[in-house]
Amino acid sequence: MTGFIFDRVAIIGFGLIGSSLARAVKASGTARTIVACDSSTAARATIARLGLADTVTDDPAVAVDGADLVVLATPLGAYAEIARRIAPALAHGAIVSDVGSVKGPVTRDLPPLLPSHVRLVPGHPVAGTENSGPESGFETLFKGRWCILTPLPGTDPEAVRKVSELWQACGSLIEIMEPEHHDKVLAITSHLPHLIAYTIVGTAANLEEDAQSEVIKFSASGFRDFTRIAASDPTMWRDVFLNNREAVLEMLQRFTEDLTALQRAIRRGEGDTLFDLFSRTRDIRRRIIDAHQA
Amino acid sequence: MTGFIFDRVAIIGFGLIGSSLARAVKASGTARTIVACDSSTAARATIARLGLADTVTDDPAVAVDGADLVVLATPLGAYAEIARRIAPALAHGAIVSDVGSVKGPVTRDLPPLLPSHVRLVPGHPVAGTENSGPESGFETLFKGRWCILTPLPGTDPEAVRKVSELWQACGSLIEIMEPEHHDKVLAITSHLPHLIAYTIVGTAANLEEDAQSEVIKFSASGFRDFTRIAASDPTMWRDVFLNNREAVLEMLQRFTEDLTALQRAIRRGEGDTLFDLFSRTRDIRRRIIDAHQA
Repeated sequence: MTGFIFDRVAIIGFGLIGSSLARAVKASGTARTIVACDSSTAARATIARLGLADTVTDDPAVAVDGADLVVLATPLGAYAEIARRIAPALAHGAIVSDVGSVKGPVTRDLPPLLPSHVRLVPGHPVAGTENSGPESGFETLFKGRWCILTPLPGTDPEAVRKVSELWQACGSLIEIMEPEHHDKVLAITSHLPHLIAYTIVGTAANLEEDAQSEVIKFSASGFRDFTRIAASDPTMWRDVFLNNREAVLEMLQRFTEDLTALQRAIRRGEGDTLFDLFSRTRDIRRRIIDAHQA
Repeated sequence: MTGFIFDRVAIIGFGLIGSSLARAVKASGTARTIVACDSSTAARATIARLGLADTVTDDPAVAVDGADLVVLATPLGAYAEIARRIAPALAHGAIVSDVGSVKGPVTRDLPPLLPSHVRLVPGHPVAGTENSGPESGFETLFKGRWCILTPLPGTDPEAVRKVSELWQACGSLIEIMEPEHHDKVLAITSHLPHLIAYTIVGTAANLEEDAQSEVIKFSASGFRDFTRIAASDPTMWRDVFLNNREAVLEMLQRFTEDLTALQRAIRRGEGDTLFDLFSRTRDIRRRIIDAHQA
């Protein structure tokens, strides 16, 4: 068992993130056994076919049996039901973590649903693609990307350390953050961009059919990048917006104000205002490239 | 001269598009001589260093001397001044084309500035990247992408045919369109996406410095795709918005209405509304992939 950080890792919800985690954990040899749990028959068949886990089940309670790490990787809306089902089956001292894109509700709502002997270390690997399902995952998804952990004060430091080590073995960089702060940062870096991409693609989808064909034909001019983002999993994103409502609405308000100002500049033909903004935004891009997150 | 479509092609403005066109024309052997014209000393040095043209000059009138094809590839705002300077030097029967992202103003405003013996075939290759300058161009930029031509009724069909052949030799697919229709289609597929990307990156740039660092750190979650688009050339895009004001404002209005509806759905916690939209937008992505424009 040398090198193993965990003996048995149960991953509940085996989509893009869950299956990528399984692949990375397997490749890095940081767990002896990987248990996959997914409610979809098709997903379980794919997991078995691709050999992504040592055991595959549709029952969360069976999955967590004997696991020293349980990772929730379903859409956020399924957490409460899963917590209720796994609670009686969780091993004493097991670590429960997750990969959800909103951290406030998880950190607040899960503890009362779990036995007090388990240790909760909520997490969010800041990585992904627009693809969904176990077949879309890949081993290097987390490489060089940040994984944010949001443990409550008083959480066993040993549990936080072990979860950190697991993600580091998968190639991630670790950041510890308060859950509410996480939700504000992600509102602007992730949730608002997705909301806007969904909106503009929806606006195009509302055009008459002729115009739609042209939108598709000439999408290489900018639009197609939005369609990639707007192809992300609908259930996951519905739950993100329902769970991070306040921070998203606050950022959306700022965005709308800025868009209104730009709209006025275009209407008035104020070229300097446009040029100044368009120059300023280039700097942010340069900083992202410098930070190796491009 | 077998295989040459043009004897001497003068490209005025040698940035991403102009230099990519020169590379593709050279690689396909469709012109005997390529003349590069750029007002930037640094750009001209790069063109010479990389051997991107047979002749390099800063004087548009010198560039077009003896050219049977002249392609304007500067930002739209420079067209009128260039037209005035090249008008006396244009060869009899020369074809004048361009690569601008807005076609109404070009097709309307250029003819009075040019001698009546030249043949105007406005064009727009629907391709690009966020990079600028002659060093950022590449030979395959137009491969499999559409090039839209917007000749006025009565334009010599031979001129339209020759410009089409040039772009086809560069790998493009050709579409003939009315200029006003082009501007409406591109307003949604290109101009609005850029406007929105510039806005959200600007919104992030307005955050306090601490928050900005975090935005950069965690940009892999969606935001970075917008920063790529918002790193596009500021002068070019200022001119696009100043020249396609009406169509952009019309599409922006539709977008804002859709965004307001989504904002309300989030505020009210209407998960079904969110899920329905997020599912619908996936279909557009699939159609873009099927159309080989992804």
